[in-house]
Amino acid sequence: MIDRSRIDYFTEDGSVEAVNARNAESMDPRLKEVMTSLVKHLHAFTKEVEISQDEWNLAIDFFTRTGHMCDEYRQEFILLSDIVGLSMLVDAINSRRPKGATENTVMGPFHIEGAPEYEMGANITLQGKGATCQFVGRVLDIEGNPIEGAKIDVWSDNEEGYYDVQQPDIQPLHNNRGVFRTGADGAYHFCGQKPVSYPIPDDGPVGQLLGHLGRHPNRPAHMHFIVSADGFDRVVTHTFVDDDPYLTSDAVFGVKESLIAQFEPVENGETEFRSRFDFVLNPA
Amino acid sequence: MIDRSRIDYFTEDGSVEAVNARNAESMDPRLKEVMTSLVKHLHAFTKEVEISQDEWNLAIDFFTRTGHMCDEYRQEFILLSDIVGLSMLVDAINSRRPKGATENTVMGPFHIEGAPEYEMGANITLQGKGATCQFVGRVLDIEGNPIEGAKIDVWSDNEEGYYDVQQPDIQPLHNNRGVFRTGADGAYHFCGQKPVSYPIPDDGPVGQLLGHLGRHPNRPAHMHFIVSADGFDRVVTHTFVDDDPYLTSDAVFGVKESLIAQFEPVENGETEFRSRFDFVLNPA
Repeated sequence: MIDRSRIDYFTEDGSVEAVNARNAESMDPRLKEVMTSLVKHLHAFTKEVEISQDEWNLAIDFFTRTGHMCDEYRQEFILLSDIVGLSMLVDAINSRRPKGATENTVMGPFHIEGAPEYEMGANITLQGKGATCQFVGRVLDIEGNPIEGAKIDVWSDNEEGYYDVQQPDIQPLHNNRGVFRTGADGAYHFCGQKPVSYPIPDDGPVGQLLGHLGRHPNRPAHMHFIVSADGFDRVVTHTFVDDDPYLTSDAVFGVKESLIAQFEPVENGETEFRSRFDFVLNPA
Repeated sequence: MIDRSRIDYFTEDGSVEAVNARNAESMDPRLKEVMTSLVKHLHAFTKEVEISQDEWNLAIDFFTRTGHMCDEYRQEFILLSDIVGLSMLVDAINSRRPKGATENTVMGPFHIEGAPEYEMGANITLQGKGATCQFVGRVLDIEGNPIEGAKIDVWSDNEEGYYDVQQPDIQPLHNNRGVFRTGADGAYHFCGQKPVSYPIPDDGPVGQLLGHLGRHPNRPAHMHFIVSADGFDRVVTHTFVDDDPYLTSDAVFGVKESLIAQFEPVENGETEFRSRFDFVLNPA
């Protein structure tokens, strides 16, 4: 029998039931599932730490300032999601793969469609002064067979830690971006820059929160890859520079151990570094 | 022994540990307690319903629009807190009282300091066409003894469901507001209007969410009271009109069963209705 007093009127003990009983029978079942779980966990959190009225005021102010920081160039709520591990968690839940397949990580805000497609071996750095690097490896299926015709879409920052779209007056469009397609051997190789670490935008409420948590805003140096092929799950990922000091403290928790790649100095080579990484795709 | 791989690198299973291990030793202990619990419950929710990438996008957009709706006149995040029962939960946690003491409910956004102090019996309605009502009762301690010198600060909407501050060009300031002080008998009585139900602002993202949940935006008719006296806990509360159709579906979950008051029609009286309610204060 339903205890009507727990759902008709608000009580501290019956707060979850009071709120969730209000949802209409006719509402979207998935929205109901999500909101019911959200209310349950939100109330459990609030009760567990016994949020004070002053803390609630601070939270309202924090969310309001976060909203006011958002415009067409800045997404402070995504940054907030990133620094509490939520963006990575959603990515992980939606890209589960068997052991051995290359793991996903977050896309980030700097990918653009329509980067130039180059012949294998091309240099994607249109303007650069940083350390040069050859990226090399293969695209394989889970049994180790090469995948022909895989599309490799890559992008990175420049030697100062900025992507081309962040510096439209300084960097040419498509600097350090390119698309490649594998041949029968599944292999890829191209030249670019050795990525460098950079801070996420930290001049807003999220940066203030990071400061209060005693955390820095930096992401370890990484090369972005989207690897796709017909019949396989698309992999959106980075490779991380193996000697980066921020590998275990990425502000957005993007690092997975399997994505750390060696960046080896090259003696008398075309580039100063070489980084080898094989991508293993899971069937779709 | 600490499993470093669970805290150095992000995994779906170890997501909470990865995020919470990052907090600095030196941070504020209360902030650490709150954030640790928040991350735990946020991740548990996300895993329980397996939020999709599209749903995450919707959530980012919803919070962004909610933020953009906030200005000096409108606080959409407070409305959001209200409709998921969070405002009432924080109020409940911070105003626990023994059985028999008058319960709190939310303050709401329409209280103002400095309402006129009247002689007992005065009419607080400066301009009104609605049903008139006498409010009457006593302020008592938990043993039932009258409290002398208690301050009673009251405010209500008008017959159209608006507070004076919402209609500065239509209603005189302090319409349906007043402050009274009890004498030795602890009694109070004054005249005003029988409150009417009204909707919370529902032309923004929170109103859209209410629509998707199949909920209406209305609050049942209520009279606001702040009752305070030296040596006692201040009570911030409403009395609710007993025949209101929204009593069991208040959009902000403000109704507690003990706060429902009778509003009785009066034959040939000074007012059309009379509502009697005793306030019982708990020692500070």
